[in-house]
Amino acid sequence: MAQNARLQNLGILVLCILSYPAMTTAQQSALNLMPLPGSTRSGTGSLQVDASFSIALTGYTEPRLERAGERFLRQLARQTGLPLSLKPAKMAKATLVIQTDHPSKEIQEVGEDESYILDVSTAGARLRASTPLGTMHGLQTFLQLVDVSPEGFAVPAVTIQDQPRFPWRGLMIDSARHFIPLDVIRRNLDGMEAVKMNVFHWHISDNQGFRAESKKLPKLTGLGSGGQYYSQEEIRDLIAYARDRGIRVVPEFDMPGHSSSWFVGYPDIASIPGPFKIDEEWGVMDPAMDPTNEKTYKFLDTFIGEMARLFPDHYFHIGGDEVNGKAWDANPKIQEFKKTRNYKSNEELQSYFSQRVQRLVNKHGKAAIGWDEIFVPGVSKDIVIHSWRGTQALAAAAKQGYRGILSNGYYIDLMWSAARHYAVDPLGGAAADLTPEQKQLVLGGEATMWSEYVNWENIDGRIWPRTAAIAERYWSPESVTDANSMYARLDIISQRLEWLGLTHRSQPRKMLHRIAGPATSEEFAALVTLVDVLEPVKDYTRGESTSYQSITTTPLNHMVDAVPPESDAGRRFGELVNKFVSTSCLDGDARERLRAQLTAWRDNDARLQLLAQRSFLVKEVAANSQDLSALGAAGLAALDAIAKGQPAPDAWKAQQLSIIEQVKKPKAQLLLIPAAAIQKLIEATAAGACSAPTS
Amino acid sequence: MAQNARLQNLGILVLCILSYPAMTTAQQSALNLMPLPGSTRSGTGSLQVDASFSIALTGYTEPRLERAGERFLRQLARQTGLPLSLKPAKMAKATLVIQTDHPSKEIQEVGEDESYILDVSTAGARLRASTPLGTMHGLQTFLQLVDVSPEGFAVPAVTIQDQPRFPWRGLMIDSARHFIPLDVIRRNLDGMEAVKMNVFHWHISDNQGFRAESKKLPKLTGLGSGGQYYSQEEIRDLIAYARDRGIRVVPEFDMPGHSSSWFVGYPDIASIPGPFKIDEEWGVMDPAMDPTNEKTYKFLDTFIGEMARLFPDHYFHIGGDEVNGKAWDANPKIQEFKKTRNYKSNEELQSYFSQRVQRLVNKHGKAAIGWDEIFVPGVSKDIVIHSWRGTQALAAAAKQGYRGILSNGYYIDLMWSAARHYAVDPLGGAAADLTPEQKQLVLGGEATMWSEYVNWENIDGRIWPRTAAIAERYWSPESVTDANSMYARLDIISQRLEWLGLTHRSQPRKMLHRIAGPATSEEFAALVTLVDVLEPVKDYTRGESTSYQSITTTPLNHMVDAVPPESDAGRRFGELVNKFVSTSCLDGDARERLRAQLTAWRDNDARLQLLAQRSFLVKEVAANSQDLSALGAAGLAALDAIAKGQPAPDAWKAQQLSIIEQVKKPKAQLLLIPAAAIQKLIEATAAGACSAPTS
Repeated sequence: MAQNARLQNLGILVLCILSYPAMTTAQQSALNLMPLPGSTRSGTGSLQVDASFSIALTGYTEPRLERAGERFLRQLARQTGLPLSLKPAKMAKATLVIQTDHPSKEIQEVGEDESYILDVSTAGARLRASTPLGTMHGLQTFLQLVDVSPEGFAVPAVTIQDQPRFPWRGLMIDSARHFIPLDVIRRNLDGMEAVKMNVFHWHISDNQGFRAESKKLPKLTGLGSGGQYYSQEEIRDLIAYARDRGIRVVPEFDMPGHSSSWFVGYPDIASIPGPFKIDEEWGVMDPAMDPTNEKTYKFLDTFIGEMARLFPDHYFHIGGDEVNGKAWDANPKIQEFKKTRNYKSNEELQSYFSQRVQRLVNKHGKAAIGWDEIFVPGVSKDIVIHSWRGTQALAAAAKQGYRGILSNGYYIDLMWSAARHYAVDPLGGAAADLTPEQKQLVLGGEATMWSEYVNWENIDGRIWPRTAAIAERYWSPESVTDANSMYARLDIISQRLEWLGLTHRSQPRKMLHRIAGPATSEEFAALVTLVDVLEPVKDYTRGESTSYQSITTTPLNHMVDAVPPESDAGRRFGELVNKFVSTSCLDGDARERLRAQLTAWRDNDARLQLLAQRSFLVKEVAANSQDLSALGAAGLAALDAIAKGQPAPDAWKAQQLSIIEQVKKPKAQLLLIPAAAIQKLIEATAAGACSAPTS
Repeated sequence: MAQNARLQNLGILVLCILSYPAMTTAQQSALNLMPLPGSTRSGTGSLQVDASFSIALTGYTEPRLERAGERFLRQLARQTGLPLSLKPAKMAKATLVIQTDHPSKEIQEVGEDESYILDVSTAGARLRASTPLGTMHGLQTFLQLVDVSPEGFAVPAVTIQDQPRFPWRGLMIDSARHFIPLDVIRRNLDGMEAVKMNVFHWHISDNQGFRAESKKLPKLTGLGSGGQYYSQEEIRDLIAYARDRGIRVVPEFDMPGHSSSWFVGYPDIASIPGPFKIDEEWGVMDPAMDPTNEKTYKFLDTFIGEMARLFPDHYFHIGGDEVNGKAWDANPKIQEFKKTRNYKSNEELQSYFSQRVQRLVNKHGKAAIGWDEIFVPGVSKDIVIHSWRGTQALAAAAKQGYRGILSNGYYIDLMWSAARHYAVDPLGGAAADLTPEQKQLVLGGEATMWSEYVNWENIDGRIWPRTAAIAERYWSPESVTDANSMYARLDIISQRLEWLGLTHRSQPRKMLHRIAGPATSEEFAALVTLVDVLEPVKDYTRGESTSYQSITTTPLNHMVDAVPPESDAGRRFGELVNKFVSTSCLDGDARERLRAQLTAWRDNDARLQLLAQRSFLVKEVAANSQDLSALGAAGLAALDAIAKGQPAPDAWKAQQLSIIEQVKKPKAQLLLIPAAAIQKLIEATAAGACSAPTS
């Protein structure tokens, strides 16, 4: 009864808020929130946050909420440097009163109420939510609102009514290709909480390692992990840590392919004879489970049963991707089986396997999620299709009543820009044409951190800050699409994520010091100038160019491992060139800034060469440095040509553009980002593109 | 027998090395070691360090050595980014063979053998030491020798024979004024190990907090810690952690003064009536134990007995400093006691107290160490005098056969430069005249980190890198005194300490982001330009100017808390001005660099002002920023005057110097370091000081 009354109050409050005019997206952007909330109404003045700041929990409480409150205060103290008391205050005295109406599900489910209302005035703040999930999201919003002001730390007066657009907002981490230590995973869960993500998809086995302890099948990690795995106790602790942050943990045991590491200890379930070893290379491997052998299913029954008890989530990810069929083709017994069953293709054989595994998953009380490949005619409706292929696959499934989540477009190992991921919508592309009911079946998406080229040291820098932009895509209204606003807020959240303990900004700096070795501050600055405009090659270029080279023993200490996926300086330079050219090259301020930047680049290589002579790791990027010099010189020549007010000679232009073509070729697996912008400058020397600055 | 044979071999090896010509200090400096070793002989070529690098332990082994080996490999992997195997190799295959001859003492003692010999050739390396203590020091030397080279990571071929100059090389951390979390202490122990320090002096109680759990006297932390204390289990773990790194843990329970926090729970042992509360202010407090009450000694008997079992070290620090006597003067019973005993002064009364406490310490199997004040006529010879007063006190004690250590000159809370601490020698000043036998009584020294103005966040930046220079003073030969060499190597060790997990470089950056709030990269760069030439006020200026202001509740989030004690940029600018003036202002390159720097400073304030309008924490340093602008302008004017080749008018000079005087006044507890150098430039405009550049 009391609970119902509370819910009614909450409903009235929501109504009141909705009747006020909401802020536009542009107004919201001023709030430096990521993800942007569902609706925001700004008030007058701000709430001061000083050492007397306190919170009180009312309504429904539980130990998890108390821990969330204490964690919130600790984080607020770190963020502000204020010595806050961690003890909860009496309600009348608390700066922030937190009311939670009722518990969330004991085992967190897809689609639970995650909404909250945050109301900040000059006198105090109130946070109200139906469940602890909403409360925790609201606390993160409050933390993001606290900033330094002319009069101290403060939160602007505002009323926020917020809820997620999609119920499944995930980050996948691959712990198989490189073992990712638990403290690294924990700090990434902290990052997920900060941006309101709610699913940690743990890709915990693959060809290159089996990382989850099985007590019933101890050789899985005993022989298949190289000693690097998570004990069941550690896994349980991590699940509790995630639950404390409103995050579900969905384990993935990829099968029937991606499974060499299983076969090291259990060759009997493989399709080809052993012995097997843990794979070390990049790429799709041949070994696969034998789908025709009853031993396989007996093994999986035991295994899934054990893991279903270890991982409480309702969903169990069975992988299913990238089976190349070679192992099946090589086994006459399997060929015989296919004939008997009248299977025309290996896809049909995999479909048979997949459905049997799904039944095992169901038997142990779970529902299966798997990659596109598990979506075959007649498959049970309780599955979730995890699409690496795209919205077309997702839309096709939804039209048949199947639920799905999208990862195509969110592969953060491909080194795309935040803007490119941000432009991908789970309900975009083919899914845009679905009916509203069908759209409900698209549950959200997951950013996927495949770990061929990441380890404990650089994984944060591959996940963050770009994943915050993806998180906004999953949480915020569909209309939130302005990339400029996103980049402005991303820069701020990125710094705040470092306060949480993530190392995406600080660790690359340390890696750069390793690369440089002992260096003068001028030499190091020259290295930074170069690095600031480099990006790793995109897509699978790196893996393809080093195929069959070990990914587990190759050091990740090269420049390409330290450089962020996206060059902020490169992006800003491109914007500056666009601005300059768009004013017919008349913008004098832009011209001077371009000239200063180009001069610095042209002269940078001379300062870098001494370092390159001392460090093999700097020497690897000596060609990139020479390219940057050439770019600087070409850009300056273009500015000079523009200044003359006459079209540049064709021969000169052709020569400059051939330099650009050379520079655009990746070197040391790195791209020099300003090349395209400088090409634009050179092209602007053509007749009519630019006015002479003095004309 | 076997052990004797080993020792003989070691002796022969030492002899062989000593017969080779040793490197000069200058040659040694090229090795980037800190502290510099006792003797070094360089070889030809270098040893490559790649992913196949391995170690083998031979001779005496113990689990501590195995852990040290694994820790060494982990650190080497972090430092190089190489995926090293942590498994020890067979001796014939190991890159580095480590031989330890025999165990060290179960409880580490003062003066144990800490020597080692490290021999690196192109084919491999051998480390040999009498005890695990020497082995661990040698491993740290090896780590420091590994650096990036033109052909990969490598160690130069070298033979090092090394041992400490002093047996007591300490760092004191005050956990009372601010509670210092255990992870912070642990990473500082890692730092100590890296620079071969071997005593962690834990100042664990003071007026502002009692931090060590007593099970027999639970109100000590129950009422005297504000909930911030270390449990006995945590203390035992920390002692084990220190022992694993060759570090003794000496606890200090300061008495009879500095003890308000004791009295909150146990007012009966105080000299004045309670109730008491935990002090929050900076400075010397009145409360003191009642030395005339037998209850006090009964209490201390119980307490010292319990703590003597908890802390295994032979030494027990009883403090004894700064008793102002006011509490004793206020108590008629104590006055009566003094009369009865014919004590003329409170010093005599303290001497009585001190000797009774020392007997309790002895009773529980320990020897006392205490501040200067405990050195009174007739005191037992087993004490160690910890001198905050100076070498004179130490020399006086040594002449009477008392041992001592020096902290005067090593108070790192005073914000002195590394060079100033580095110039202080435990055997300098009055101690230089001691006989060789008396000098043996000077055991070493301790850097002292008093924590009135440090907490978890900025303590690393107060301790490091300066403490590495102090560590060199304690370890390296007396002849190692070149401050330029020290600074060059300090810069390198400083970066390496960040690899260990210390945050003295990375955390101030985060603090600066907090101070700035959301800022453009240009705005933030302007803040960095200012900060780079600021230093906190020296000595006790800050405490004195904010006396009676709470040190426990005042936020440490101001600029003065983030700024390093020593400005590298300021030092380098001073060197550049010296160079310029020493060439009669004829050095054109120096002149241009000065002009560029001065121009940047002059123009910096304009960029900073927008930030100052948005952030109260930036606004606090707006005056410093204006001063920097004024300095830049004054310096440029001086350069212009010098360029004219004629003496500048006196009136102009007087006006400029009055600007300098204004600038030299601390603002926001900060000093602007280039002021002195620019004063020198202005003075160089006088007749005869500089030639005209074109003359």
